[in-house]
Amino acid sequence: MCETNAYIYKDGKEELYLENIDILKPEEGRIFLKNLFGEQKVFEGQIREVSLLRHRIILEKK
Amino acid sequence: MCETNAYIYKDGKEELYLENIDILKPEEGRIFLKNLFGEQKVFEGQIREVSLLRHRIILEKK
Repeated sequence: MCETNAYIYKDGKEELYLENIDILKPEEGRIFLKNLFGEQKVFEGQIREVSLLRHRIILEKK
Repeated sequence: MCETNAYIYKDGKEELYLENIDILKPEEGRIFLKNLFGEQKVFEGQIREVSLLRHRIILEKK
């Protein structure tokens, strides 16, 4: 199992947003996320970078 | 190890674009991808959906 977490990048720091991401889906200025346990969140912003090797999804405000 | 591949969605089909993705980075209408072996590609389009559980990154033209 690959546990990849989503973080919000702000002012040079990364803050944990949602753990164990399954789905990541951009939707008109927002990012829809769903994790392995069915928990869902919508982030107002964009994807900054995904590194699967580092198990990190970095999101940021526009 | 989690082997996640990138596919291009077109006309209801998904075509393999790059295997074993590490980095996925949106850049002004393009998506920069790098795989575990250092191979890099730039796709003119956007992210349609990422499903880590299914090990799939789906890209599409705008």
